[in-house]
Formats: sequence, structure tokens, C-alpha cells
Amino acid sequence: MEKDNKEITSRDVDFAQWYTDVVNAAHLSSYTGVKGCIAILPNGYAIWENMQKILDEKFKELGHQNVSMPLLIPEGLLRKESELVEGFAPEVAWVTEGGSKELDERFCVRPTSETLFSDYYKDAVKSYRDLPMLYNQWCNVLRWEKETRPFLRSREFLWQEGHTIHATKKEAEEETDLMMEVYRWFHHEILAIPSITGKKTEKEKFAGAEYTLTNEDLMYNGVCLQVGTSHFFGQKFSKAYDVKFLNKENKLEYVYQTSWGTTTRMIGALIMVHSDDFGLVLPPRIAPTKVIIIPIGNSDVVNNKVEELETKLREQSISVKVDRTDKTPGFKFAEAEVLGIPVRIEIGERDIKNNTLTLVRRDTREKISVDMNTDIIKYITNLLETIQQDMYNRAVERRDKLTFTAHNLEDMEKILNEHPGFIHGDWCGDQHCEERIKEIKGCKARCILEDEPLIDGKCVCCGKPAKYHVVWGIQY
Amino acid sequence: MEKDNKEITSRDVDFAQWYTDVVNAAHLSSYTGVKGCIAILPNGYAIWENMQKILDEKFKELGHQNVSMPLLIPEGLLRKESELVEGFAPEVAWVTEGGSKELDERFCVRPTSETLFSDYYKDAVKSYRDLPMLYNQWCNVLRWEKETRPFLRSREFLWQEGHTIHATKKEAEEETDLMMEVYRWFHHEILAIPSITGKKTEKEKFAGAEYTLTNEDLMYNGVCLQVGTSHFFGQKFSKAYDVKFLNKENKLEYVYQTSWGTTTRMIGALIMVHSDDFGLVLPPRIAPTKVIIIPIGNSDVVNNKVEELETKLREQSISVKVDRTDKTPGFKFAEAEVLGIPVRIEIGERDIKNNTLTLVRRDTREKISVDMNTDIIKYITNLLETIQQDMYNRAVERRDKLTFTAHNLEDMEKILNEHPGFIHGDWCGDQHCEERIKEIKGCKARCILEDEPLIDGKCVCCGKPAKYHVVWGIQY
Repeated sequence: MEKDNKEITSRDVDFAQWYTDVVNAAHLSSYTGVKGCIAILPNGYAIWENMQKILDEKFKELGHQNVSMPLLIPEGLLRKESELVEGFAPEVAWVTEGGSKELDERFCVRPTSETLFSDYYKDAVKSYRDLPMLYNQWCNVLRWEKETRPFLRSREFLWQEGHTIHATKKEAEEETDLMMEVYRWFHHEILAIPSITGKKTEKEKFAGAEYTLTNEDLMYNGVCLQVGTSHFFGQKFSKAYDVKFLNKENKLEYVYQTSWGTTTRMIGALIMVHSDDFGLVLPPRIAPTKVIIIPIGNSDVVNNKVEELETKLREQSISVKVDRTDKTPGFKFAEAEVLGIPVRIEIGERDIKNNTLTLVRRDTREKISVDMNTDIIKYITNLLETIQQDMYNRAVERRDKLTFTAHNLEDMEKILNEHPGFIHGDWCGDQHCEERIKEIKGCKARCILEDEPLIDGKCVCCGKPAKYHVVWGIQY
Repeated sequence: MEKDNKEITSRDVDFAQWYTDVVNAAHLSSYTGVKGCIAILPNGYAIWENMQKILDEKFKELGHQNVSMPLLIPEGLLRKESELVEGFAPEVAWVTEGGSKELDERFCVRPTSETLFSDYYKDAVKSYRDLPMLYNQWCNVLRWEKETRPFLRSREFLWQEGHTIHATKKEAEEETDLMMEVYRWFHHEILAIPSITGKKTEKEKFAGAEYTLTNEDLMYNGVCLQVGTSHFFGQKFSKAYDVKFLNKENKLEYVYQTSWGTTTRMIGALIMVHSDDFGLVLPPRIAPTKVIIIPIGNSDVVNNKVEELETKLREQSISVKVDRTDKTPGFKFAEAEVLGIPVRIEIGERDIKNNTLTLVRRDTREKISVDMNTDIIKYITNLLETIQQDMYNRAVERRDKLTFTAHNLEDMEKILNEHPGFIHGDWCGDQHCEERIKEIKGCKARCILEDEPLIDGKCVCCGKPAKYHVVWGIQY
């Protein structure tokens, strides 16, 4: 029953090609006639819808409300906050003509919406009674990237961007932390990805932020991926955009602001952490279809059993599909594997005669024979949970195996030349050292672990007294 | 307990100002620094989310899948279908610079996505076995309108656009009909708007379509609003974009195509059909919050009763809010009215002493005293249904009162000068007559009622033999 895997390159042979092959074989996205922009196809979009549903519910539980701000930003408005402009200017697209006329003022297609939210908040907030304002939007943004790759980096991508304003610094910082914790929770509990979180260095933080928190995932090949950031702006934007409120002492004060976002890049992370040479592997909690039933043969007794099981699963809100096409069973098995459906159930006449069901786990490809008298719904529910946990545990194991400690530049080079990963190393805080380390295969500071003690107290680059425990790595 | 309505102009005095006042008072949207583009605020966006949820479920029930196509369309790709280009060219926005460079080819920000879907389908479809492909996307589009108005017409708007391809003409036409029926159902059953549906004339149809079906709503002031269209393209796009498949006879054939869409304009229709001088009035089935409880006073006995009722409603998934702010009851009542929440419950010590609850219907503003021993959940569930039905019936009554019949141009002028509305009148099919009628206050053919018999068989304009029973009207 081995699958004919011609279409998927082995991930240990050519990881980049393997990734492309999995995306194509599972029909997650497609290239388009628009350079650097992908079409997200039904199988990919269904994953995104699940991500949206779970995150949106959590955002709302925490008091956030959804809104929709414009796609276009007038150039004059964008230019009010100089760091943001400098950070994004090289990668924005400009609308210069509209309604058959050259425009008096150019519009930039939003790369992010701090400017528009700030401009809105300026008129919307009057007093501390109006605060906090906790807005979020699900939308598309555009960044004119040179090198693109499905889900990981594309000129247009889908995301959510939360933008909040608060009466006090403390409250805004708590929000910054809280939303990073939401992303961490989502990665660990839902995506089964054991990410690490920490603070970006000054060099790597978001343009215009006082500081940036980040969620960093480690891919199967040891390359890092930044997925989800939460920014504390202090009063930078509120001063640039004049967002003031009357505080409890009846004095005008600038609001404290945050923003936080995560994107369709999470689909790329899911693939690169969990999938294998047989295609996609999806953690049950995010899989659009959790169970697929494949009838073997077309007899009444098989069809009745299939239907009975399908109904039972639906009644328990376990999303299930039945492959009733006229393809061969072998083909159907392979297809269910490529699509990453967590549990496959095969039902044939022989199974019915033996009074058993054949279940196959997608993550381990293990075949399990289950007595038909078992409480099958309970069994599947437990199995889905086991798969979720096992996938998480294996990802932790792999992450830990690819986590290294460097005490000096030599260590750093040796590790990066042998196998990249999360590399712990102390840092003095000097940007020259960051630049020097970047010379080794483009290795960057992923994040500062503020609560972790120093390793040996010496900067991994210059050897001088260190200030920060940093995780370094090569990134997508 | 009359509300101080200073902020809302009477709809019978100045309908346009009334509309603006309601939008602002209910905080549905806000103007932005981007001309012609609005920010949809939480109260407005929550209505849109409800619309999306109900429609999306229906689309999926009918076998459609969601995808995401690019925002940008290369000029060369757009130009392949000449009618579409001619139709949209005057109102598109062009991206001419990206990544700090002038682009070799301009990109148009999508005004609609037939081109991108066709370009995708070209490579995706091989055989009749791949058909039908039933895709939809929820996204933003841009049309460089000169005159704009919140929700009714803005440069950027949110919508869904379904794009399907089929193996036969019959199947594609059935899809065109089916999706129009979905919009009709949504208007009548969910929005409580008694729309009429029919076919657009050649002059009014979508650029590039063989024909266009339309859903037309009648506003309180007798002006018409086109909300939701479904287009049959035949093979026009498939020929322009070379979308071919192997049919059952193993011959290459062009696919048959449809598209259909509806937008945030539905929020504008909701306001203009149902709302009044006290603010928004929302039909229960689309209202994000169905019940608001307003405690009068702050005693334990009141708070306990409020909490008990809140819990009961939540358990039955009836969305409920409690206004626990320290505003006065009168202020809270007015606010609940402005927001259009269908049922308001007032609970004070006097009510508890009398063992009654005070319910207020938003649509009629009628106060109802209910014995506390009543099954209150059942009572409220029924009341919400009654409100939905009553709102629909009143809208039907108003629509019928504003529905007229014209036999000649004189009738037409008289009706339009007295009070606009849906005007039934036969038509010969000649565009000159359409043009002539348009001279009367811009009156256009809203739709052809193909199943209706002719009225008197004479064209309302030229008096010659008529071919079509048409509904005419002035539009937004």
C-alpha cells in the first residue's frame, strides 16, 4: 500500500522543492499571472478560515471588536510618522491614477494600517471614558517583496491587525503582552508548534515601535520563521497623529498604543513543521476535515456502514468527508494522505465480516484495527487528541534537538555550518556585534529572552560583558 | 420617556440628512482621510459579519468553496475581454509604482475579478470531471466613484464575488438563477426586505455578461437600490481567456461561466427600508444584539434578576447585552433605540415588586408588561419572530403603496413628479425609449419581469407593441 510519491521530492533531499511540491500536491495555492501574488485555493483557504475562526473568537472574548479601514493611505498621512515611512517606503506600491486621471496626491496600498487607525482614533477619542479602544481588522496588505514563496512571503498577503489605544502605559504594555500570549497559545495549543517568544532587538523591531514582541517557530530544516508580532508604540504614533484624550485629572494627554498581527504565513509554518514526504500533515485542531471515510467496494453492506458512521460523526460535530468517487482505494488513500487529513477510516466487506474498522493515523501512518463494538466516536475523539499531542511532542523533540548554545563566534560558525537551529548566545547589546554575526549566513537575533538568565555573561561576538540572553538563527 | 432626538433629522423632512444622521448616531461608519472611502466601525461591521455568516453557510450548503485571488490585475490580462475593460476603465485605480520603481506594466486594483478567476480556471480545468468549479471570495474592491455615500456607494467596498464554471449552458444558467434566488431569499427571509428580482436590459446589464439578473429593493422614500446581481457569461470570458475542457465526447469545448455578488450596500438598504426618526431598526434575524437589558437602579434584587435573565438568554444562544454603565435610564433607552436592538428589557425594583418585566419593541416602540411567571425565553423567542414578520409585512405594505402602473409617458412623468417608486410599464425593447424615459429624473429600467404578462401591450414610451413587462424607477 505504499504511495507512489513521484510528485513529492523528499524533504531530506531538497527541502525547498519538497515545500513547493507539498503546496502543489495538496492544492493549497497556485501561482497567478500577478508576479509575487498567489491564489489561495479551497484547501488552503479552509485552513485560513479555521485559523480566523479560532483567533477571532479569542480576540472577541478579550474585548476586541472588528472594523474595516480603507485599503489606501494618502501619502501625506503616511509621512506623518517618519520611522514608519522609512521602514516601509522601499516596499510599498503606489496608486497614482484613478478614474482615468492622474491623482493630485499618491495613495499607498496599505502595507500595515497604523496611520489609518491613528487618524481615526484622533477624532474618535475624547476622554478616558472612551478608553481603551480595542479594534482589529481581517484584511489584505501589500508589500513589494523581491523574492516570494507561497504563504511564507508574498507581495499580497492576508492577515489580522489589531490596533488598540489605552489611557496608561501600563495598560498598553499589558495588552502587548496579552496578545503575544494569544499567539503563543495558538501556536502551542492549536497548531502544535512549540514556538518561543521574546523581544526583538532595536535593529529588528517594527519601524516606529518602542519595542516588538515576537513569536518564532523552528522549521523542520532548522530555519526560523517569525510568525506573529505584538508592538508597543508608547506615545510615538499618538504624538505624530495627535491622538489626545482628557485623563482623569482633566488634562489632555496622548494615548498609549499597540498593534499586533499574524498572517497566512502560519499555513507555511504548519507545512514546514509537521508535513512529510507523503504530503501535508495537519494537527487535528486546525484541520478543516478531521476524518475521511473510504469505502472499499460499493456493496450495500459497506455503503450502509459508511453512512451510519458518517452520520454519527456529524452528530458529534466531527468534520468528516466520505470519498465516494470511483477512483481506486489505493489512489484514495494516497490522496487523503497528501491532504493531511488526520484520521482515515477504511471500510470494506472484509472489515465488516471481521467486525472491525481499519483506522489509519496520518501523522504516524499507523494502521489500527478497532472492534466495531467499541464506542467509535469516543475512540476517534481520543485518537484525534492523541495525534494532536503526539504531533506537538515530536515538534518539541525536534526543536530541542535543533537548539544549540554558542559561547563565542567559533561556536556560532560551527553550529551554523553543521545545521542551523535556535542558537542561544549572550549579547552585549552592541549593533556592531549583531552585524558581525549576520555575516555568518545571514544569522540574526530572533529574540531576546528577557526572563532567562545569561549563559556565561560574555557576548558571543566580542566577549565583553553581556546584557541579554538572545536566541539567534537563520530566517525565512 | 420620549427621546431627545436633536441629532437625527426627521426622515420626512430631509431623507438624505436623516440617513447620514442615523449612520452617525448608530456609529456604523466614519468618514476617513481617504476621499470616498469609509471606515466601517464595530456596530456596522458586526452587521456585515452576520450577513457573511448566513450567506457563507448557504453558499457552502450549495457546494461552493472559498478562495482568495490577488488584489491586483495586470493591465494586459484585464484587456483580454474588451467589454469588461470598456465598462470598468473609467472607474479603476492604477498602481504604477512598486518597490520605489516605476512598473513596466500597470496594475489595476480589482474592481471585480472575472479576469483573475478566468486566468486561474484556464490552467485548473482539464476535463468535464473537474466541473463544475464553484468558487467564491469575500474581499474588498475599488471603483473610483465621483459621488459617494456611506454603504450605498464608496470607492472601496466589501463584498463577496462568486465565480463558477460549468460543462453545459443549462447548468450555468441554473446556477445564475439559483444564486439570484439565494439573494432573494436573504432579502425576504433575513433582511425583511420584499425585493423584486428580474433581468437587466441590455443597456443596464454587467459589462461582458450575456445577461444579468438583479435584486432590487425599494427604499422608504421610493428610490430604488440594486443590491445583488447574478450574471450569466455564456462562453464570452472562456473564449477571451481560453478556458477549455475535454467534454464527455472527448472534444475540447469552452466552459460556461457565471458570477454573482452582493456587498456592504445591504447595510444601507437595511437602514433606508426599516429605520426611523429614533435611529436604526434592525430585523431580529440580522441584528448582532437581539436583546438589551437595562437595569433601573443598582440594588441587589435588580442585579440578581438581570443576571438570571442574561444567563437564561445566553443559554439559549439569544445574543444579549446588559447596559451596566452609570448613565441615566432615559439615556440608555435612547441609546438602545438608536442602535436598533430589537427588544429592550427594563428591570427595576418596581417591576420586581409587581412581578412583571417591561419589554419594549424597537420596531413599534410598544411597551409590553409581562408576568414574571411566563416562560420568558419562549416569550422573547416568539416576540423576535413577530417583530421579524411585522417588519417584513410593513415593508411589503410600503412597497405596494409605492408601486405604480404607467401606460404612457404622461403617466410616467406624473408618477415620478408626485412620488417615485416601482413603476410597472410595458416596453418595446428599443433603447431610444429607455433613453427618453431616463430624461425624466434619470428614471431607468430596474428589471424586466419575464414571467409577468404585459400590462396593456403598448410601450410606455412610444406606444408601439411591447415586448417586456418592465419595472422602472429612480435609483441610488
